[in-house]
Amino acid sequence: MEDILLNRRSIRKYSNKHISQETLDYILQAGVRSSNCGNMQLYSIVVTRDTGKKKELSKFHFNQPMVENCDVVVTVCVDVNRFNHWCRINNADESLNNFLFFNVATIDATICSQAIATAAESKGLGICYLGTVTYMAKDISKFLDLPKGVVPISTITIGYIDENPPLTERLPLSSVVHYEKYNDYSDEDIKKMYKEIEDNPVNKGYVKENHKDNLAQVFTSVRYSKKDNEAFSKTYESFVEENFLNK
Amino acid sequence: MEDILLNRRSIRKYSNKHISQETLDYILQAGVRSSNCGNMQLYSIVVTRDTGKKKELSKFHFNQPMVENCDVVVTVCVDVNRFNHWCRINNADESLNNFLFFNVATIDATICSQAIATAAESKGLGICYLGTVTYMAKDISKFLDLPKGVVPISTITIGYIDENPPLTERLPLSSVVHYEKYNDYSDEDIKKMYKEIEDNPVNKGYVKENHKDNLAQVFTSVRYSKKDNEAFSKTYESFVEENFLNK
Repeated sequence: MEDILLNRRSIRKYSNKHISQETLDYILQAGVRSSNCGNMQLYSIVVTRDTGKKKELSKFHFNQPMVENCDVVVTVCVDVNRFNHWCRINNADESLNNFLFFNVATIDATICSQAIATAAESKGLGICYLGTVTYMAKDISKFLDLPKGVVPISTITIGYIDENPPLTERLPLSSVVHYEKYNDYSDEDIKKMYKEIEDNPVNKGYVKENHKDNLAQVFTSVRYSKKDNEAFSKTYESFVEENFLNK
Repeated sequence: MEDILLNRRSIRKYSNKHISQETLDYILQAGVRSSNCGNMQLYSIVVTRDTGKKKELSKFHFNQPMVENCDVVVTVCVDVNRFNHWCRINNADESLNNFLFFNVATIDATICSQAIATAAESKGLGICYLGTVTYMAKDISKFLDLPKGVVPISTITIGYIDENPPLTERLPLSSVVHYEKYNDYSDEDIKKMYKEIEDNPVNKGYVKENHKDNLAQVFTSVRYSKKDNEAFSKTYESFVEENFLNK
């Protein structure tokens, strides 16, 4: 178990081996058994398994090959549609379409996702989260037929492992953990904690090939540019407002 | 491992036994090794261990006794303060203070939280998530000295187990999992899937003692009333706007 949690890597290459329905049910059940707010279960899980559908879905994930090549794609969604429906037929208030519960349900959908990820990894499978789900939430919703009150939050590709990537770097544990109070960072602290990451030859390569001064600039002007972030943010916010917040 | 994920219960009563620093480091490291967007690690973990501080913190969690009685309280926060600081000293754009990245970082902080929860459970410890962290985000931020760009997302109490609660109910797996497309529910579907939960004698007791017609009304007029939800939502939204979105 320690090995599963400490030595995990995101896996993007999968073999053709099929995940049995029994294993998939166990993985999904692990998601559902995890904690959630008031036991309201404000999430739904959409499974994409059909070869043709995975191919279509991959378009919305910027054609990342793992969507088509994995065995199962799981999209976990915030879902107040089901709970609201239960309230409606019971003459009870519908009270969840607000900013607070969008966040509460996002947290619950993510807890469920991560339990799914760990359950899959505990069965010897590899997983990869796809951040593109947030960028392309509107198109993915349409593709999966999601009704109002349902917003895709996380997408995970799952399959048997066919690569052996190295462990990715992380900041030192002491840099992200604070005891009792948040200890804000000095410039020196920041320089020190990022040093190993900046000195990594792979990262130095990115700086060079993108003609930037340093790694931070690669992040914010190539990989996650302000212009792109703001454009995707606007699209995502409008979609959440229309589809969830009833604004 | 199956047992850990499928038979877990939230634990609210803890023994006095102390969690060693080695075990705590393993648990936190498991959080940090989990997936995150672009390896930007947009989260911080604040650990509350001091007895006096746990007592003070419990006030903000509506005096729920597990905050004072657990061994360790972990508050996982969205954190763009550290990454922005790195960008600032590297003459790179600060591009994360928007709605998109509030959500992306919320997802990453929650993935980290759930890896922490599972790591703790795998060591024989019990955990409980506290939803009050969202309701009281502003006060908790002040108490933990969180700077701008840092928002508490999830709070977990951790300790050695001193109770044996039953497994809580869940909707049938088939009711929350959809294959290929979202299958919207008919009134009959909803009635059928909630029947077991509604028939549970404990839930019937709640309906009776609250003088309501049914369980849905207990949820939306007693436990999570529209009035309360909307008030907490307004407070939370203003806090996120001021402290993260720079609106």
